[in-house]
Amino acid sequence: MDFVAKNLTKLRETNPLVQNITNYVVMNSTANSLLALGASPVMAHAMDELEEMVSIASSLVVNIGTLDEYWIPSMEKAAKIATDLKKPIILDPVGAGATKLRTKTALKILDFADISVLRGNFGEIAAVLGEHGKTRGVDSVAYDSNEAIELSKNAAKEFNTVSAVTGPIDYVSNGKELYAISNGHPMLSKVTGTGCASTSIIGAFSAVDEPLKAAVSGLTVYGISAEMAFAEAPYPGTFQAKVYDWLYRIDEKLVLEKAKVNKFEI
Amino acid sequence: MDFVAKNLTKLRETNPLVQNITNYVVMNSTANSLLALGASPVMAHAMDELEEMVSIASSLVVNIGTLDEYWIPSMEKAAKIATDLKKPIILDPVGAGATKLRTKTALKILDFADISVLRGNFGEIAAVLGEHGKTRGVDSVAYDSNEAIELSKNAAKEFNTVSAVTGPIDYVSNGKELYAISNGHPMLSKVTGTGCASTSIIGAFSAVDEPLKAAVSGLTVYGISAEMAFAEAPYPGTFQAKVYDWLYRIDEKLVLEKAKVNKFEI
Amino acid sequence: MDFVAKNLTKLRETNPLVQNITNYVVMNSTANSLLALGASPVMAHAMDELEEMVSIASSLVVNIGTLDEYWIPSMEKAAKIATDLKKPIILDPVGAGATKLRTKTALKILDFADISVLRGNFGEIAAVLGEHGKTRGVDSVAYDSNEAIELSKNAAKEFNTVSAVTGPIDYVSNGKELYAISNGHPMLSKVTGTGCASTSIIGAFSAVDEPLKAAVSGLTVYGISAEMAFAEAPYPGTFQAKVYDWLYRIDEKLVLEKAKVNKFEI
Repeated sequence: MDFVAKNLTKLRETNPLVQNITNYVVMNSTANSLLALGASPVMAHAMDELEEMVSIASSLVVNIGTLDEYWIPSMEKAAKIATDLKKPIILDPVGAGATKLRTKTALKILDFADISVLRGNFGEIAAVLGEHGKTRGVDSVAYDSNEAIELSKNAAKEFNTVSAVTGPIDYVSNGKELYAISNGHPMLSKVTGTGCASTSIIGAFSAVDEPLKAAVSGLTVYGISAEMAFAEAPYPGTFQAKVYDWLYRIDEKLVLEKAKVNKFEI
Repeated sequence: MDFVAKNLTKLRETNPLVQNITNYVVMNSTANSLLALGASPVMAHAMDELEEMVSIASSLVVNIGTLDEYWIPSMEKAAKIATDLKKPIILDPVGAGATKLRTKTALKILDFADISVLRGNFGEIAAVLGEHGKTRGVDSVAYDSNEAIELSKNAAKEFNTVSAVTGPIDYVSNGKELYAISNGHPMLSKVTGTGCASTSIIGAFSAVDEPLKAAVSGLTVYGISAEMAFAEAPYPGTFQAKVYDWLYRIDEKLVLEKAKVNKFEI
Repeated sequence: MDFVAKNLTKLRETNPLVQNITNYVVMNSTANSLLALGASPVMAHAMDELEEMVSIASSLVVNIGTLDEYWIPSMEKAAKIATDLKKPIILDPVGAGATKLRTKTALKILDFADISVLRGNFGEIAAVLGEHGKTRGVDSVAYDSNEAIELSKNAAKEFNTVSAVTGPIDYVSNGKELYAISNGHPMLSKVTGTGCASTSIIGAFSAVDEPLKAAVSGLTVYGISAEMAFAEAPYPGTFQAKVYDWLYRIDEKLVLEKAKVNKFEI
């Protein structure tokens, strides 16, 4: 997929500012992932500065991982501003399905904001879609490739967005086209915040391409970086450090060599 | 101590979900420690989702490291729910003795909640116990092995819990039995959040054994991982990464080979 | 500069307690930087414990990186207490100029508190100074050595403090003397929180020397550690771990060998 390689170069030339309202657990690792890749992170959530901060950012990432009654209004206000300013918004519904508050918050933002990409694991996207009146509910968390494909397509159609269902294979769809990305490594599941990092990286790519290709670019680049990291460091602590190294080192040549991306019309 | 090795295998088979209400400084490192070991971390503190989150968790860890007027009620509510649901609760009274707010908050939770394990350093446990009407007060922070033994026993009796006083040697007691663990490494004191990580790891082991043995298992496994890490990386930055590596790599054989655990009747 | 080397030894003998009210993104990395160097970090922000915590600390670091309506009063209260207690206060106006809230908050604290050292990059210090009635405004963010020198001097005079404008060359001035520090490495800009870490390290050195020399000592020691780290690990993830390693390993001999510090009368 040539566009992934080209987007990587564009991203580094652009050095986009990505505004993140994300969870406490991953703020540091998300910022480091964006910096290593070549983007600039901002983490700001104060109601009184959202207008200015979203205005200067290229995209907004909203991640509900440690949501509470003080942060939810901030997420909502930022999403409202970004929608008005037509900035790409990437939503990560962390833990949707685990509690009603999470599912409800994700759905509310999906409802009023113009979400470019919805990125989550199978259970999270299934929960969000299930609560929205579809038959697939929060119980279906076992991963199955065919179900993940269906889920990705249905979520995209239902919410009129690009839906990225990540797992052993990542499925990204806008409801009409579907990409399958087989890059990545299981060791990512032994490090916290790797899903969240991929969401913010999609935010960075959203500054240089339309949502579908931005999501595919972000997940492919992150996945390849993880593979390279694992080849050098097969245990989680040193692996994590090497993922940052490879987000920095990855280039067009490596992308073209390693990308496992397939496109399907649906 | 065979039970430590067996608990490690049980923990990985169970993959327990550990709900943490912990401090901002260590959320990331705590989550990574639990993931590397084979448990699943959740960090959630919103009042409106505590009921659901504690319900699906195997145990609750409460750490007061960056407590404030918004987080204290969340810690209290979670501890109340976990007590009602008979889930193990591990309390880490970070900085007790340094400020009245910390000592008071730890004591209040000890008072109304059913705490399985109270884990702190000598000064913290001494502060909590001292303020509770015992002669040992917050001033006695110098570490002495005999005093740490007494403190561990007395805190266990006074609060009807398992008390883990960690330091050069860790002492764990339920008031009747006492374990001394000589694993660990001084380099742990040069990395933030290592005490907090050990608390959450005790939380993970609490899903597979009773409090006394869970605490001994957690501290032994963490201590051995630190020793192995130091042997490979004797400086704090790379050491920290290697601790995660060894939490992932440690197995029954290594535990049996390296554990320095002694049991005393008291 | 002999005083840098001597301050390093003094710092390790003193093991100063540095109280930080800083941002969520860098709490972990700041604590690890201070620990590796030989200081002790505290992160506490609850209104009810600030009096006690600031009292036992050697210095206070205020960093506005993720400020909001709940944290600003905490920063202000802590700065007021430290001023009353004549403890050194180091202010890091993260993102000043990006939003009015940040510029305003930094200026308010500069106004009523006795700030020992103001540490920021060119854009941040320019924004703070520009808003204060000087001609240099928030637009001048392009780095220029002569402009950075002027800015450092002018900010020091205007706010009656020591001003540290960091960049490819760091300029530190009290309005009468100026130090230029050429240590450091561009890779620092690919890791989040390195500026914030240097601010807190200045806080640690403030326990053992007066503000001007404390700032020079902190920036020099941090810069050399980064250079050594890069020589061993030229990519951001492993580089970050090595920076901690070298904050721990750096000694007087290395400082004397590597320091690139020049002093100018102005």
